[in-house]
Amino acid sequence: MSRVVLRIDFDTDRHLGHGRIELLEFISELGSIAKAAKAMDMSYKRAWYLTESINETFAEPVVIRRHGGPGGGAAELSQFGRDLVRSYREMEAASTSACAKHLRAIERHLAPKPD
Amino acid sequence: MSRVVLRIDFDTDRHLGHGRIELLEFISELGSIAKAAKAMDMSYKRAWYLTESINETFAEPVVIRRHGGPGGGAAELSQFGRDLVRSYREMEAASTSACAKHLRAIERHLAPKPD
Repeated sequence: MSRVVLRIDFDTDRHLGHGRIELLEFISELGSIAKAAKAMDMSYKRAWYLTESINETFAEPVVIRRHGGPGGGAAELSQFGRDLVRSYREMEAASTSACAKHLRAIERHLAPKPD
Repeated sequence: MSRVVLRIDFDTDRHLGHGRIELLEFISELGSIAKAAKAMDMSYKRAWYLTESINETFAEPVVIRRHGGPGGGAAELSQFGRDLVRSYREMEAASTSACAKHLRAIERHLAPKPD
C-alpha cells in the first residue's frame, strides 16, 4: 500500500525528484510545456523554470523546445530524457522492493485511517 | 556522490520524509522540540505541527512530550520512534544500494559543476 518516492540529490544544488519526473512524462505525452503545466495544475512560468533547471543539470538536453507559436511552442524529450525518466522509474521500483520488509513492519503501526 | 532521499507515502494524506526524520533525530539528540526547531532553522510552531502530524500518523506515540516549562518543555522519542528512525535510515541505505548502478550511469551525464 505504501509507496516509496525518490529524490536524487546529485549535489547540494542539483536534484531530480518525483515532481520533475512527472513534468517530463507529461511533456513527453502532451508535446508541450504549457499543456504539461496545465495537466499538473502548475503555472507555465514554473514549468518553464523547472525545464530549464533540468536541462542545466545535465551536459546534454533533456527537453528539446521548439520556440514560438501560441502557448510556448512544442517540446519533446530527447533520447537521453526518455532514458532518464525510465531510469528514475526503475530506481523507484528497485527501492520499493528493497524497502518492502521495512515498510510492512511500519505499516502495522499506522493509526486507523481517519474517515 | 549522489544521494537517494526517500519519502514514504503511506496514503494520500500521510507520509514520512527526510525532513520529518531529521526533526526526530534532533529531538532525540537535543531532548526538546524547541531546540530541534532551532537546530533546523525552523519555527517552533512548524516543528510542533510536524511532531503532531507524525504522532497522528501512528497508533502509538513517536515523540513523547513533557509539557510545561519555558521553551515548550522536554521531549523524547519512544522506543517505537527510535525504531522508526532506524528503519528509515536502513531503507535509505538499501535504496541507495539498489539504485547504485543507475546512479553511476546518470552521473556520467551531469553537466560540469558550475564554479
